[in-house]
Amino acid sequence: MKERRIIGIDPGLAHTGFGIIDCENSRISLVSYGVIETSSNDSHEVRLFYIYNKLLAILNEFRPTEAEMETLFFARNTTSALAVAEAKGVVNLCLVQQAIPIFMYSPNQIKCAVTGTKTADKDTVARYVQLLLNLKQPPRPDHAADALAGAITHFHSTLSA
Amino acid sequence: MKERRIIGIDPGLAHTGFGIIDCENSRISLVSYGVIETSSNDSHEVRLFYIYNKLLAILNEFRPTEAEMETLFFARNTTSALAVAEAKGVVNLCLVQQAIPIFMYSPNQIKCAVTGTKTADKDTVARYVQLLLNLKQPPRPDHAADALAGAITHFHSTLSA
Repeated sequence: MKERRIIGIDPGLAHTGFGIIDCENSRISLVSYGVIETSSNDSHEVRLFYIYNKLLAILNEFRPTEAEMETLFFARNTTSALAVAEAKGVVNLCLVQQAIPIFMYSPNQIKCAVTGTKTADKDTVARYVQLLLNLKQPPRPDHAADALAGAITHFHSTLSA
Repeated sequence: MKERRIIGIDPGLAHTGFGIIDCENSRISLVSYGVIETSSNDSHEVRLFYIYNKLLAILNEFRPTEAEMETLFFARNTTSALAVAEAKGVVNLCLVQQAIPIFMYSPNQIKCAVTGTKTADKDTVARYVQLLLNLKQPPRPDHAADALAGAITHFHSTLSA
């Protein structure tokens, strides 16, 4: 059976987190995680270009078979929500160009799947990701931990399907 | 002196309007306009892919030297505003990959530049675009007329600079 490799992505104009896991039967293991950072000194469109290019390099290096992203909810900071949405558009494009199927989960679904409760804070999510992937310490920063949590959520969801 | 060719773009997930004008000294003329339409039967990411591919074909055909887009303002329909922002991210990426500089104007700046008043409705904008470009009838649909209005606004703005 072909191994599944899931990339979770937490998009943002300044920080796009990613986390990649391998799945073999009911077991998962960490492949890589990190954050694509862009500088506010660069123009808006150059930052999107940078996210696209870095993500493309990550996809080419790790060859995930499936991708997971959080559904966008409407933040109070509306300007930043629009910037996140622009980054999300670019991430969607990059994934579809590589023919990687995309699965979406809400923040609550992810928190529930990983910690068992909708009210978990970011530290709790990171500690559960640490446990589930058998890591020496919680993954940091939050964007990378969230991306790993998303990837784990997608794995759980398809396991029980 | 190298001729300037401006593309105005009015991005959206379902309809992305574009309008292209040539500028020679203080004169402008129509090159082309139209709308990239996507189907709600397709997945979100496939629609973004389609917008990207169609826009890339338009840029390759007409080779604009500058691009104009409206700044996004916060609509009441927040879900649709996020979808527009995703399309805008993809349009930004496509332009920056082709090294086409992008200029932004607010909806009020565009209405003022084209009609002389901030309160102009869409029909008035389309009729002024018709007059300014010496067309036989107002450009349709609204998304294409808005894109042409944006291109004209950028031309006026750089003329007086």
